[in-house]
Amino acid sequence: MSASPFRASARLTDEWKHFDFTVADGVATVTFNRPEKFNPLTFESYADLRDLLHELPSREDTRVLVIRGEGEAFCAGGDVNEIIGELIKMDARDLMAFTKMTGEVIRAMRECPIPIISGIQGVAAGAGSVIALASDFRVVAESGRFAFLFTKVGLSGGDMGAAYLLPRVVGAGRATQLLMLGDTIDAATADNYGLVSELVPDENLNEAVERLARRLADGPTLAYAQTKSLITRELDMSLGSATELDAMTQALLMTTDDHAEFHASFNEKRKPHWTGR
Amino acid sequence: MSASPFRASARLTDEWKHFDFTVADGVATVTFNRPEKFNPLTFESYADLRDLLHELPSREDTRVLVIRGEGEAFCAGGDVNEIIGELIKMDARDLMAFTKMTGEVIRAMRECPIPIISGIQGVAAGAGSVIALASDFRVVAESGRFAFLFTKVGLSGGDMGAAYLLPRVVGAGRATQLLMLGDTIDAATADNYGLVSELVPDENLNEAVERLARRLADGPTLAYAQTKSLITRELDMSLGSATELDAMTQALLMTTDDHAEFHASFNEKRKPHWTGR
Amino acid sequence: MSASPFRASARLTDEWKHFDFTVADGVATVTFNRPEKFNPLTFESYADLRDLLHELPSREDTRVLVIRGEGEAFCAGGDVNEIIGELIKMDARDLMAFTKMTGEVIRAMRECPIPIISGIQGVAAGAGSVIALASDFRVVAESGRFAFLFTKVGLSGGDMGAAYLLPRVVGAGRATQLLMLGDTIDAATADNYGLVSELVPDENLNEAVERLARRLADGPTLAYAQTKSLITRELDMSLGSATELDAMTQALLMTTDDHAEFHASFNEKRKPHWTGR
Repeated sequence: MSASPFRASARLTDEWKHFDFTVADGVATVTFNRPEKFNPLTFESYADLRDLLHELPSREDTRVLVIRGEGEAFCAGGDVNEIIGELIKMDARDLMAFTKMTGEVIRAMRECPIPIISGIQGVAAGAGSVIALASDFRVVAESGRFAFLFTKVGLSGGDMGAAYLLPRVVGAGRATQLLMLGDTIDAATADNYGLVSELVPDENLNEAVERLARRLADGPTLAYAQTKSLITRELDMSLGSATELDAMTQALLMTTDDHAEFHASFNEKRKPHWTGR
Repeated sequence: MSASPFRASARLTDEWKHFDFTVADGVATVTFNRPEKFNPLTFESYADLRDLLHELPSREDTRVLVIRGEGEAFCAGGDVNEIIGELIKMDARDLMAFTKMTGEVIRAMRECPIPIISGIQGVAAGAGSVIALASDFRVVAESGRFAFLFTKVGLSGGDMGAAYLLPRVVGAGRATQLLMLGDTIDAATADNYGLVSELVPDENLNEAVERLARRLADGPTLAYAQTKSLITRELDMSLGSATELDAMTQALLMTTDDHAEFHASFNEKRKPHWTGR
Repeated sequence: MSASPFRASARLTDEWKHFDFTVADGVATVTFNRPEKFNPLTFESYADLRDLLHELPSREDTRVLVIRGEGEAFCAGGDVNEIIGELIKMDARDLMAFTKMTGEVIRAMRECPIPIISGIQGVAAGAGSVIALASDFRVVAESGRFAFLFTKVGLSGGDMGAAYLLPRVVGAGRATQLLMLGDTIDAATADNYGLVSELVPDENLNEAVERLARRLADGPTLAYAQTKSLITRELDMSLGSATELDAMTQALLMTTDDHAEFHASFNEKRKPHWTGR
């Protein structure tokens, strides 16, 4: 694939071994592929996710990232024996390296300029629920359900940025309930709480995810990238700084081909042809 | 009109030429008045809004600001040809001056100590939707609808503080959806998201706006001003700093005539007579 | 009672005189006990609340705090004559001491590592509504209602951290409405806004509060404490700092007996026995 001009010695990874990875017509898709165990995360799949998210902005072939799970579930989080069984034997240095890696997956999701869609059927639990939470869009089937179950394994509900993100998505009251108790909520409750972008019957999930991915891949990608960046950054900024950042961003985007193309297409009464430049 | 004692050489503006402006019994009303084009904003009306908002706190005749649109719509935002057609010809210096001016309108709305009510029928789009968002109260008719449509013109959804304000009003998930996709939502959806203060049939909109404006103009205006200021500032403060600011604010307000008047009226079993002092 | 090893000269208070206080099997209960006046707060009950909240983390007998009101109401806030009547005679020094004390109650509630449940029937008004707001869980009877009525007494709606907390729980739009106008909302509206953790018929309120308190007292208390701490702190942190704090917290909790106990109990197909260590 072609790479960004701002890539030098470092090679892009040829093959991601710990999930399925495909790119077609601007849409990259990560599919967790151990359906018999509800797509658990492993040390290796965390590492691959982190590294893929760091590389994605340098790939010229990807304009949207879709995250899916094979079979009945989205992602059941870290496996009890493959992950927890190992963690309880580790020392401080390795534990920190692990928890920093998992947090880095979430930070990279939020800082990646490419919109991320999670398509969710069945359970999104533990780290799986945080990956859903950190996505820009959650297209959720009626069978979808969320379990921020960390306290149920004796850990803090604030795992991988969940205590930062969830109150900003559903409010601090509901976030406390979900993170402190770790109970499972169904898709309708999640929708009511503001955790769902689009709620669909299970048989329509693939189509709904593809339609949204297509729309984003065919749209003004630079405008989307900066919208995502501003939403992410302005959660951590003051009003005055945010309006300043907005002003500089819009002034720059007003010089782009895409903005001029909108104007031309409007006056020519046709659809705009976006190039992301 | 009489001006604040803390006004010296600078004169207050006599006439606002780019919207209708009236003040009656403490209630100032800005009415966008180009209904044939759904009340678009122009370079001049942005400038007038910014300057009016800077002057309002110095006017002694205004205790509430109402923003309305004439005809079928609230405000369709920047006009495609009058604004976008000009912007695509501008250089960096002028683009920055424009985007900083529009951001300043929103910042001034939030920092103005006077409560602001938007009364919304029909469309509030682009900058019009952000003006609605930055108001303290959105009284919305059933015909009302919101479109944060910036990406549809090839620009960032984070325009004029929208990426700061919207996640804090409707949550980061729904804000992402609205700002990234730019789709229109109707009044019922906006209400469900928490974007509506009061939802009314269209024929009751004028009355509902007037009733709320009257109530605020006749109330304890210093208490309202400091409530607005604390809500605005504490979005950007830590819990410890916020409780400290609250403590100093309340200690000061406890020395006011209005607080003593509440106590007297309570014991005399009559309605309080507020003076805003 | 036994005290924390990190307690030295300072004695724990023997008797709290301005509310009922009991501890049974890990659950401490504060009950406001002047039902004939709807459980008003007084100078003394604020002071006792502040001091109790500072002592609670040093008590080894308390794993959950429940706050209740006797009779028909939760808590009507500061009494008009006992508190407001005195305040309007005070000078700046005493007013500041009072408002800093009340703010400190709320800050101590949020910083206390012990989960706090408010069980609410009837009115939670003024400071009573802020105490409910600052709790981790609000179990609300159908008769429950909330009134952030500060502007109605001529003061700022941002009292005791309310202008910080309420926008983060219900969104900035609804918070503006509640804090600026000071109107009363019923339990169903509060639930719709996200201000209610659990809504129950009045006759089930005691049981629902006890069930939740029991669950939290019997659970992994260190995990709960750190979940609460992260939710509280990460409202004031950036995403990058939050993922770092989460990483260090989880790495530490992964070394605990409770985390190992989860793993053992899972493989032995039995319920975990939590010790909070």
